[in-house]
Amino acid sequence: MSKTKEFQKLIFTYEALQTWFEALYVKPCRETTIPLTEAYNRVLAQDVVASEDLPRFNRSAVDGYAVRADDTTGASETKPLLFRLTEEDELTDTAHRQGKQVWTGNPLPKGANAVVMVEKTKKVEAKIEVWTQAAPFANVMRQGEDMKKGEVAVPAGTRLKPYHLALLAALGISEVNVIEKPKIAILATGNELAKVGDERGAKQVWESNRLMLTGMCCELDAEPLDLGLAKDSVDEIAEGLMLGLKIADAVITTGGTSVGGLDLVPEAVNKVGKPGIVIHGVAMRPAMPTALAVLEGKPVMVLSGNPVAAITGFEVFARPLICRLLGLKREEQRPTIKAVMTRKIATALGRKSFVRVRVTQKNDEFQAEPVSAKGSGNLSTMTKANGYVIVPENREGLAEKEKVTVHLFDEL
Amino acid sequence: MSKTKEFQKLIFTYEALQTWFEALYVKPCRETTIPLTEAYNRVLAQDVVASEDLPRFNRSAVDGYAVRADDTTGASETKPLLFRLTEEDELTDTAHRQGKQVWTGNPLPKGANAVVMVEKTKKVEAKIEVWTQAAPFANVMRQGEDMKKGEVAVPAGTRLKPYHLALLAALGISEVNVIEKPKIAILATGNELAKVGDERGAKQVWESNRLMLTGMCCELDAEPLDLGLAKDSVDEIAEGLMLGLKIADAVITTGGTSVGGLDLVPEAVNKVGKPGIVIHGVAMRPAMPTALAVLEGKPVMVLSGNPVAAITGFEVFARPLICRLLGLKREEQRPTIKAVMTRKIATALGRKSFVRVRVTQKNDEFQAEPVSAKGSGNLSTMTKANGYVIVPENREGLAEKEKVTVHLFDEL
Repeated sequence: MSKTKEFQKLIFTYEALQTWFEALYVKPCRETTIPLTEAYNRVLAQDVVASEDLPRFNRSAVDGYAVRADDTTGASETKPLLFRLTEEDELTDTAHRQGKQVWTGNPLPKGANAVVMVEKTKKVEAKIEVWTQAAPFANVMRQGEDMKKGEVAVPAGTRLKPYHLALLAALGISEVNVIEKPKIAILATGNELAKVGDERGAKQVWESNRLMLTGMCCELDAEPLDLGLAKDSVDEIAEGLMLGLKIADAVITTGGTSVGGLDLVPEAVNKVGKPGIVIHGVAMRPAMPTALAVLEGKPVMVLSGNPVAAITGFEVFARPLICRLLGLKREEQRPTIKAVMTRKIATALGRKSFVRVRVTQKNDEFQAEPVSAKGSGNLSTMTKANGYVIVPENREGLAEKEKVTVHLFDEL
Repeated sequence: MSKTKEFQKLIFTYEALQTWFEALYVKPCRETTIPLTEAYNRVLAQDVVASEDLPRFNRSAVDGYAVRADDTTGASETKPLLFRLTEEDELTDTAHRQGKQVWTGNPLPKGANAVVMVEKTKKVEAKIEVWTQAAPFANVMRQGEDMKKGEVAVPAGTRLKPYHLALLAALGISEVNVIEKPKIAILATGNELAKVGDERGAKQVWESNRLMLTGMCCELDAEPLDLGLAKDSVDEIAEGLMLGLKIADAVITTGGTSVGGLDLVPEAVNKVGKPGIVIHGVAMRPAMPTALAVLEGKPVMVLSGNPVAAITGFEVFARPLICRLLGLKREEQRPTIKAVMTRKIATALGRKSFVRVRVTQKNDEFQAEPVSAKGSGNLSTMTKANGYVIVPENREGLAEKEKVTVHLFDEL
């Protein structure tokens, strides 16, 4: 029972993260060059600089006639001005009013600095009547207006969204350097677990955490690798860890991390190498028995077997880690919403508590209803909730009607 | 110029969507059965009902000793009670205090209804001292507590998140019926466009909308199909449309949808079949020249060539369509946040306006800074913004310091 004493000095979450990261020297994964057409949601490894102005010439923003703006002075519906049409790429006759037909997106002919919309003109044989004055650069998308040559179009560390892809394509870029997806190996442990599809013993339950953690890696666009299921055996767990360290950038285990007789994962971690476990026991609820380790310079996260605790441990430790491995400028956060607690809840002083809530909209207000304080092992509390509220260590709960920030993990 | 008159009766967005959906009878795509291990982010086609209680037996939530709760009455640190240990799956000796060692997750032996944590006991040869009273079901995860047999575990129309996968795995499910990913074929049109990687004419620009729309499909987990690039030719566009209708569940075109001489997409659509275009011209900004069509019973979206207008048209029409094709219970919305406008902006009365803003946090307040009202063709206004505000048709703008709802398309 001596081990139980370890948890008498729980580490605060931010301190745990800092200690672990310092032991790790976390760096982004390797760079790789991929076609832009495959770059959706990937993280840019290097700044992309515009190699030309965008647009690279003055373009018409409408269908109409390119003219010299000055030539339109005084034009109106009652007093239209006549312009001769040219097919040339230049308005050559500076002594007379000239226009050239342009479609949306066409370059302006040399000498032209405005476009009159086709609706404001009338064609009369080889000439047009112009019914309106055009200011300089009216209906013109000016060269370099979107982006100037030499500007950083998209900075390193950006996750490429659809409009980033478009901007890069518009600059003629066909390949980009991105950070490789971090490989995260996932090992479940516990004699009580049976693999779905296999035989299940009378005292066993279906194992479900691997698939859950796999999905959480996918949410961040990391690449999950399955290490399968280990029995409560130091050797078997160590073997799984070693394989994970060989094939992945980080390893996550689930189960066997408390201080009971079969909580063998920390022991297995320390058997594999140094420094091994750097944190064991965090001042949070759920997920108190989380451990963090470093092996072969790689991060190892020892999460609880309790599914809600495993999720919480992932959110607090794996999420910032993966964001760093991805080379993201900053940690990606879940969307938040301000809501009002529908009732008071109690939490433990000295622990950071993650309270699952269901947020709904009532008129113009969002209400957060706590989902069963009991049963942090119950997956249905996750499927019934759509977010969590973080209660800090110096609070003993939340008051009814208190305004809180909810971190949303699902739709309202 | 007669065509310009069409746009004098612009349709409101909600009316356009309703008219189009009525012409379509939109139904979800086909069902398909896939392994649960591949079901992350897919949409469930049918309710999944729990085939057994979860957990299926009373389980210990801790490491300790399973006992009859009544037997612990009066136990305390100063007055411990002695329990004999058994290895059996039942506490048989009802006349005496009995306990059985259990690890977290183990089933309780028959007759036991509580677990005393190992920390509250002391082993004394073949017996244990119990130092605390245990209430009935203390430290027990009760059978069916998470979910009862026959309950709907996950309803049809749910996008499967990590904890849904875990809940289904915990119920022993290895395969699920999901809705097939809607195939969305994307065709870009315009003589002024060159494919990145190809030769580019002196008056051409790099085509970028296909990749952008591809990414927007990926955001919703639809499957984009590339129809390439068509010149401004009714025949060439019609050919692209016909191929799209053959291989996809819906077709999106971009470019050539206004009322100029080279805006040939609506004509090409109507050439392909009936009813063809059902809406052309929507009371919104940007994306006013959007057209919506039905061909061979399939939806066709004719979006602007202006990238920001194409994005907006996609948000307003393709997003709800794809959500229906996916069979989602309700349309998936972007996360929203309440923010305060940093300055006033003007919008057009009678148009639903989509104003790009950059939201930042200042102390406890979110501020929304409009990103260049000009240049709705400028992609950099999208990469500089992180959300949009919708100004309704009956407003002529937003006031400085007005509180608005921002729809976030990127991180703060």
